Amino acid sequence: MANIRHALNVKREDDFAKWYQEVISAADLAEESGVRGCMVIKPWGFGIWERVQRLMDDRIKQAGIDNAYFPLFIPLANFEREADHVEGFAKEMAVVTHHRLIADGKGGLIPDPEAKLEEPLVVRPTSETIIGDAMARWVQSWRDLPLKLNQWANVVRWEMRTRMFLRTSEFLWQEGHTAHATREEALEETHRALEMYRACVEEDLAMPVVAGEKPENERFPGADETWSIEAMMQDGKALQAGTSHYLGTSFASAAGIQYQDSEGTQQLCHTTSWGTSTRMIGGVVMTHGDDDGLRVPPRIAPHQIIILPMLRDKPEDAEVLAYCEQVRASLAEQSSMGEKIRVLLDKSPGKAAAKRWSWVRKGAPVIVEVGPRDMENGKVAVLRRDALWNMDNGKPAMAFTARDEFTAGAAQLLEDIQAGLFEDARARRDANITRGMDNWHDVVNFYRKGGKYPGWVEVEWSKPTGDALEAVVEKLKAEKLTFRNVPRDSEPASGTCIFTGEAAVERILVARAY
Amino acid sequence: MANIRHALNVKREDDFAKWYQEVISAADLAEESGVRGCMVIKPWGFGIWERVQRLMDDRIKQAGIDNAYFPLFIPLANFEREADHVEGFAKEMAVVTHHRLIADGKGGLIPDPEAKLEEPLVVRPTSETIIGDAMARWVQSWRDLPLKLNQWANVVRWEMRTRMFLRTSEFLWQEGHTAHATREEALEETHRALEMYRACVEEDLAMPVVAGEKPENERFPGADETWSIEAMMQDGKALQAGTSHYLGTSFASAAGIQYQDSEGTQQLCHTTSWGTSTRMIGGVVMTHGDDDGLRVPPRIAPHQIIILPMLRDKPEDAEVLAYCEQVRASLAEQSSMGEKIRVLLDKSPGKAAAKRWSWVRKGAPVIVEVGPRDMENGKVAVLRRDALWNMDNGKPAMAFTARDEFTAGAAQLLEDIQAGLFEDARARRDANITRGMDNWHDVVNFYRKGGKYPGWVEVEWSKPTGDALEAVVEKLKAEKLTFRNVPRDSEPASGTCIFTGEAAVERILVARAY
Repeated sequence: MANIRHALNVKREDDFAKWYQEVISAADLAEESGVRGCMVIKPWGFGIWERVQRLMDDRIKQAGIDNAYFPLFIPLANFEREADHVEGFAKEMAVVTHHRLIADGKGGLIPDPEAKLEEPLVVRPTSETIIGDAMARWVQSWRDLPLKLNQWANVVRWEMRTRMFLRTSEFLWQEGHTAHATREEALEETHRALEMYRACVEEDLAMPVVAGEKPENERFPGADETWSIEAMMQDGKALQAGTSHYLGTSFASAAGIQYQDSEGTQQLCHTTSWGTSTRMIGGVVMTHGDDDGLRVPPRIAPHQIIILPMLRDKPEDAEVLAYCEQVRASLAEQSSMGEKIRVLLDKSPGKAAAKRWSWVRKGAPVIVEVGPRDMENGKVAVLRRDALWNMDNGKPAMAFTARDEFTAGAAQLLEDIQAGLFEDARARRDANITRGMDNWHDVVNFYRKGGKYPGWVEVEWSKPTGDALEAVVEKLKAEKLTFRNVPRDSEPASGTCIFTGEAAVERILVARAY
Repeated sequence: MANIRHALNVKREDDFAKWYQEVISAADLAEESGVRGCMVIKPWGFGIWERVQRLMDDRIKQAGIDNAYFPLFIPLANFEREADHVEGFAKEMAVVTHHRLIADGKGGLIPDPEAKLEEPLVVRPTSETIIGDAMARWVQSWRDLPLKLNQWANVVRWEMRTRMFLRTSEFLWQEGHTAHATREEALEETHRALEMYRACVEEDLAMPVVAGEKPENERFPGADETWSIEAMMQDGKALQAGTSHYLGTSFASAAGIQYQDSEGTQQLCHTTSWGTSTRMIGGVVMTHGDDDGLRVPPRIAPHQIIILPMLRDKPEDAEVLAYCEQVRASLAEQSSMGEKIRVLLDKSPGKAAAKRWSWVRKGAPVIVEVGPRDMENGKVAVLRRDALWNMDNGKPAMAFTARDEFTAGAAQLLEDIQAGLFEDARARRDANITRGMDNWHDVVNFYRKGGKYPGWVEVEWSKPTGDALEAVVEKLKAEKLTFRNVPRDSEPASGTCIFTGEAAVERILVARAY
């Protein structure tokens, strides 16, 4: 195999964490903002988020859920409600205490002591309580149910150690909140949201996931059931990419979400909540990135096909540009995977080679180069980002294709790339879930000696609760392991629990995680 | 004319301000949140905003501008830069001073004194400075220009007196920021943005505006030129619905946005910024609302056609529903004004009459009712929100139309409603701009005696500056009047300035304003 000179300085196998940072920067996704723990999401990174957001939002609307918008600030009282039973309450949150800045007389600015808020406000870490308050106002009778709301918003959780997209103090997310008359309906909604997440993340982000229920210790505080989708990154770690909670009547009870049933009796609602965030973008990087940068699945690529004219400041440039424009127009009128093809004719200044490598690092699915000779021959030079290198000679695998042939096949090409990225990730995921270990020591050895990227282990367990569960979780923690979820479509248990030796009742995934 | 029983309690002519509040509430647009100055935007109100946002965003992307996302929090230092020359700096802003909440031991919560930020952070009132910082990092050479960015975000300006959509402490907006190599290019962008706003607000929101330049005293601080679009509300007051600023090199100088030109010399960029906000929704209410609630222009209506089945808990209900579903499906596959028709079959519980009036108050453009008899006759009963009443009998003007005739004409019907709303507002606006007054006393008398809703006056002036301008502005203020703008397409001046008696150089609009 030829020696390939990759576009990044750091390879995945050499330092995965450093590689991740390099992709974020080389693909122009985001950068540090200078404000502690907050990032600037750059146009290419935000364009990917906008695509994810639009595709997810279409699915949310399709399910009959309405978007609404709730205040950024939350009164302390909402948290005091929650803190009632928590003696040692201490939460990292951004607290607003003043409403005016004034000059300090020394050239600086200070919060005006005269403008101190009577009651501090918290910048929302989630809108759970404030949406609960609204639901309590909006739900009176069974006729008002179900009430299904979603919000796209920024939220803030003061984080001590941050990592772009994966853990930042401010991040963008959607939070769904629904209220129902019965447990059955609320559970159905919990599963609908989970399945919506699975479908969006697998079909749009091309990121294979395992959907399943979290064990008791990983439940959202106050939830009766927490379900998640878990994706495997290329270093074998798990990334929780979305959660869906069935909250029983406990949140309705705290917020006073009640309805009068058809017989005139007051009843508590059964509620759900579910969320996904910009964290998914980190998942896309660690699922599809390679040693040349990011590879963006076509469905979420802001531009799917980039056309690069090879200009030389010569008279024939105009002709090359016109030829490129024809290719662009022919692509732009076609659809692929149910949407118009997104094609960019990149006329920005700069050398064609530099521009090519910039788009390679950004991960545009298809790059098309056109020089005077290609034009004369009625051809275009096509570079697939998912098959970048000619393994025989170590050079970029440019395919010189007749123009009409390329435009006629472009829609299918994008579909193939989307499917290929998913299949590669799925095969990698499946190859890295180990089953059949029947005792804890094998698991420990597996992770201690299992190479760099050991992946996940699926074990049988007896689903202990309370202290017994706590003891198991401590065992895992000592090995830097966590429970991910009980896959909803896993085989039934047949053996004994590797933790307790009792009869196993289900299979659960164990992994290192982000 | 028959006596009509309108759907609202307050009429526009009786108390415009109170009427406005009633529409906001009766049309389910928004409500107080319990957090000072912050509103909850309810699903129907947010749906309208989402439509505005999508249509504006399409135009922004069409112009080759990229969306990005910048931090919610801004360091004090960014404001100190600005405050350098402002001795008496005092600005209403939300200031974050702590990053943790803890229990106070008395059942309450307090900001943890141990978790005080070394430097307070401000919740962004605009992202001007933080985007300027990013531009300074991203622009190095002429090849990086133009740099054109846009952000959709929430911003906070602590307001003492608030009014829903028009003035709230938190609001949603878009802010465009661009950097260019030359003054000409930056001015061109300033005008492109202004024209984009005019087109979007007139074509999508059906709200006629006057585009023009703000006089010196109304300029954005630091701007060389400020342009605006001004809409006339039904009470004759002006609402500034969008602004576009040419900032010269002053912001580039403050933030250090420089580029190396093709000869290797460092140059300051010329920058622009432009914005619109949820305020526009308030404008839609005051432009298109009537004594029965809101009338939403079809292009920005979340649902354009509502189908209401008249169900009676009888066996034939299923047949009626099936008939309605056929109508829905036939509409949903059609396009109107370039987009698929948005149709809702409203199967929610409740009486048909109550549901009809709820949609009337919300302002859905077309309401279609279907009862068993309509079905038998192959008809539907159509109610146009823009022609609600039969003036002869004072009853809702239901048109019983053959089903196929209705579905075949629905796309055109929506287009007609969109055009009609705009034309009505345009005619009202044009009828309420008074011209030809050649002295200040006439203007004063006009507003003092001009009836309830006097509208705007266009006068000729000599465009004084400095103290002379200040004196004019004081005169206006005493009459609660303001300058709006110098319409970009107004006739040239021909007479004398009504303020200074000097030769006039242009025409300017005077009005009361929100």
